[in-house]
Amino acid sequence: MKWARRHVLDTDDWSREEIDRVLETTGAMVEVLERPIRKAPALRGKTVILFFAEASTRTRVSFELAAKALSADVTNIAASGSSVEKGETLWDTVRTLQALGGDLVVMRHASSGAPYFVAERTEAPLINAGDGWHAHPTQGLLDAYTLRSALGDLAGKRIVIVGDILHSRVARSDINTLVPLGATITLSGPATLIPVPWRCGAPPRSTSYEPDLDRALDGADAVIALRLQKERQEGGLLPSLREYTRVWGLSESRVAKMRPDAPVMHPGPMNEGVEIEAAVAHGARSLVERQVTNGVAVRMALLYLLAGTPSLEER
Amino acid sequence: MKWARRHVLDTDDWSREEIDRVLETTGAMVEVLERPIRKAPALRGKTVILFFAEASTRTRVSFELAAKALSADVTNIAASGSSVEKGETLWDTVRTLQALGGDLVVMRHASSGAPYFVAERTEAPLINAGDGWHAHPTQGLLDAYTLRSALGDLAGKRIVIVGDILHSRVARSDINTLVPLGATITLSGPATLIPVPWRCGAPPRSTSYEPDLDRALDGADAVIALRLQKERQEGGLLPSLREYTRVWGLSESRVAKMRPDAPVMHPGPMNEGVEIEAAVAHGARSLVERQVTNGVAVRMALLYLLAGTPSLEER
Amino acid sequence: MKWARRHVLDTDDWSREEIDRVLETTGAMVEVLERPIRKAPALRGKTVILFFAEASTRTRVSFELAAKALSADVTNIAASGSSVEKGETLWDTVRTLQALGGDLVVMRHASSGAPYFVAERTEAPLINAGDGWHAHPTQGLLDAYTLRSALGDLAGKRIVIVGDILHSRVARSDINTLVPLGATITLSGPATLIPVPWRCGAPPRSTSYEPDLDRALDGADAVIALRLQKERQEGGLLPSLREYTRVWGLSESRVAKMRPDAPVMHPGPMNEGVEIEAAVAHGARSLVERQVTNGVAVRMALLYLLAGTPSLEER
Repeated sequence: MKWARRHVLDTDDWSREEIDRVLETTGAMVEVLERPIRKAPALRGKTVILFFAEASTRTRVSFELAAKALSADVTNIAASGSSVEKGETLWDTVRTLQALGGDLVVMRHASSGAPYFVAERTEAPLINAGDGWHAHPTQGLLDAYTLRSALGDLAGKRIVIVGDILHSRVARSDINTLVPLGATITLSGPATLIPVPWRCGAPPRSTSYEPDLDRALDGADAVIALRLQKERQEGGLLPSLREYTRVWGLSESRVAKMRPDAPVMHPGPMNEGVEIEAAVAHGARSLVERQVTNGVAVRMALLYLLAGTPSLEER
Repeated sequence: MKWARRHVLDTDDWSREEIDRVLETTGAMVEVLERPIRKAPALRGKTVILFFAEASTRTRVSFELAAKALSADVTNIAASGSSVEKGETLWDTVRTLQALGGDLVVMRHASSGAPYFVAERTEAPLINAGDGWHAHPTQGLLDAYTLRSALGDLAGKRIVIVGDILHSRVARSDINTLVPLGATITLSGPATLIPVPWRCGAPPRSTSYEPDLDRALDGADAVIALRLQKERQEGGLLPSLREYTRVWGLSESRVAKMRPDAPVMHPGPMNEGVEIEAAVAHGARSLVERQVTNGVAVRMALLYLLAGTPSLEER
Repeated sequence: MKWARRHVLDTDDWSREEIDRVLETTGAMVEVLERPIRKAPALRGKTVILFFAEASTRTRVSFELAAKALSADVTNIAASGSSVEKGETLWDTVRTLQALGGDLVVMRHASSGAPYFVAERTEAPLINAGDGWHAHPTQGLLDAYTLRSALGDLAGKRIVIVGDILHSRVARSDINTLVPLGATITLSGPATLIPVPWRCGAPPRSTSYEPDLDRALDGADAVIALRLQKERQEGGLLPSLREYTRVWGLSESRVAKMRPDAPVMHPGPMNEGVEIEAAVAHGARSLVERQVTNGVAVRMALLYLLAGTPSLEER
């Protein structure tokens, strides 16, 4: 399959073949990262611009390390201290970044859809590193890679996603990536934090909602806990953090209801003691660090497919 | 011509030959940037320190990309979080940067003249990336390169600069670069934002003041709109932004008064709808993105002439 | 001697051989830094993560330049804007940094002991770049290298450290490095800023307290002035800054009481006019800039010994 996409904005319209292509390429990148000298020349002389208009550590650093492992030059633009603060339009900022010679822009933005607006108006490939509540496609892909490494073929596997689904770009991107790979998804969490289609009994294909987390976990193949934003409680969507932990927190006894060795995942940063117990977060089932490691490889794969492809495949 | 300057502080005392030398070298750098692998080894093993004591995105990133394209190592020092905040003197900060092994320091500072103070006390070459209202020599050079690429020889060409001339280091540096190349400059803008020599009828050689922007643009070869700092209105120097836009904003009908295809430039970031209409900012005459692209090449040229020259010319 | 330590947390338990090994390696790194192309391949393909949870310029940039001079990839994590602010535990942050593929972590933290907590729980080598009032081992080593370059063998040499010893990780690390090399240390400063063992007449081996700075300096071989944190006065530990300067500030007449050419050092950033006169800070005896230059070489030596050793020694 020849790679044809210019941008990675969302995976909601990706084919199974496209997802497979990224996951295979990720496998090759994992091998690069296991070498004593973790450096491939695929993006040498290319410039990757990391434009994070919303604070982030792990995602930004993950992209930075991915780009450097492929020998790209990397430059960081944060929103604070940038011309964004001087009242420049988003469009102008990104056109400027492109005019500066960026071969690829990685962008995080607090507004859902912002990367679409930008991608329509620029020439450089653009990767969405998270836009509002909308999508976080590289997280979906790294979760798929991590689950497939742990469970093998995902066909018929049942994955539980628990937490604040309503405001979660991670949940949306996980569903968009895992369902085409054959998994079924059980969502769990307080009804106030579940989007309408599931809450009102009209779930999309291969997904369902089970408010009782113990039932949801029973016999499941894996669970992904989402980060609980403490603002949700202030917004009146939760009775209390303690109540949330009691009903939807991942405890050792709860995760034991899944199949033996069924893994536990979390996109991080974790609120230990809220959505996940420390013993689970760091226990034998936890793939949390593996997710972080795979995140670098997935981002290398995308950078390579988007910015490194032509010159490499033509040779 | 052998390059003899150690620092780039201002272009007010540069010879025509020096300006030409930078613009020719810029042309060579543009070619480097058009290669599939945009990387030249001229500054390999050299360290460029970007010391920005005043916030900036485009200028800082432009220097960063320029230095990396020449294979230099780059380190960023921002004022916030740095020892500048701990009460260290400017002199000590820069001596420290030099002792750290910086081969070249690029410096932006809110105080006019700060780079002179520093350059007298350090050994590393220093490039002024903007000091207060005083000078922004790399902007002047990139504007000259951009205009010459668009218009050919600048002898006899008439360039309009419109806006807040009084507080503009860009205007000062544009005049200092364009006049030696043979251009004449017409300044326009509210009298409260025009420096004394022009306001009082004693303009320097090859420059003049025309308060009526429509007259200034009539038959002009190019126009450069300056960014309007919104603080100026609060300071009582402007009646209102709306009034400013009505009288000195670049609209499509206004720019049509220039010669056919006469270009429109702006140092960015633009206040669209204030000093420039969106249709002009992104219209066919606009060279705004070209300015940004050329900015990287001009900065590569200066880095090369200041820090890369000896070893390269000796071989 | 084969290098066996995995981390550099403190030098309080280092052998004379270990200190010598670092200082010898530093000498080799100084030679690398004197080459026209200051670049060695020892850490090529390795990633150094600079995790500074407390603001710093000179130490962070020093490590960054050291790592780049050894061809490592470097990524910066600051506390602000990082997931530390999102309530993530320190442990999780550092495990994440490690999972991202950091081959070595350099860490500064406001809490004494934080690097020990982290080092016990991670696999990557860790260098303490300063933890609270506890230790700043790279400063101690660079001061030792600088003194030995200036004075030769330190056996029998008497070094004065003057200022706020109580809150100074620099003083602690200087003592821990200089005493094993044979120096004796005279501490001076206001009794309110001297730790109990010295104030109460039970100083550790080879150290003493002399409240009268003139007596302390009489015939000394070198003096290290510490930075006075202005908060100390607000905390009631000082009568006034003027009083401090009068009694414990390094003036030209005071430093003249030392042996001829005895050097003056300061870890920076300096409060000129408080703990040190400008004429002394920039006078002929001052090694302040030399300390900064040597700091890069010492950090290169440690990065090399911790992360570059195996592959290089095996060949």
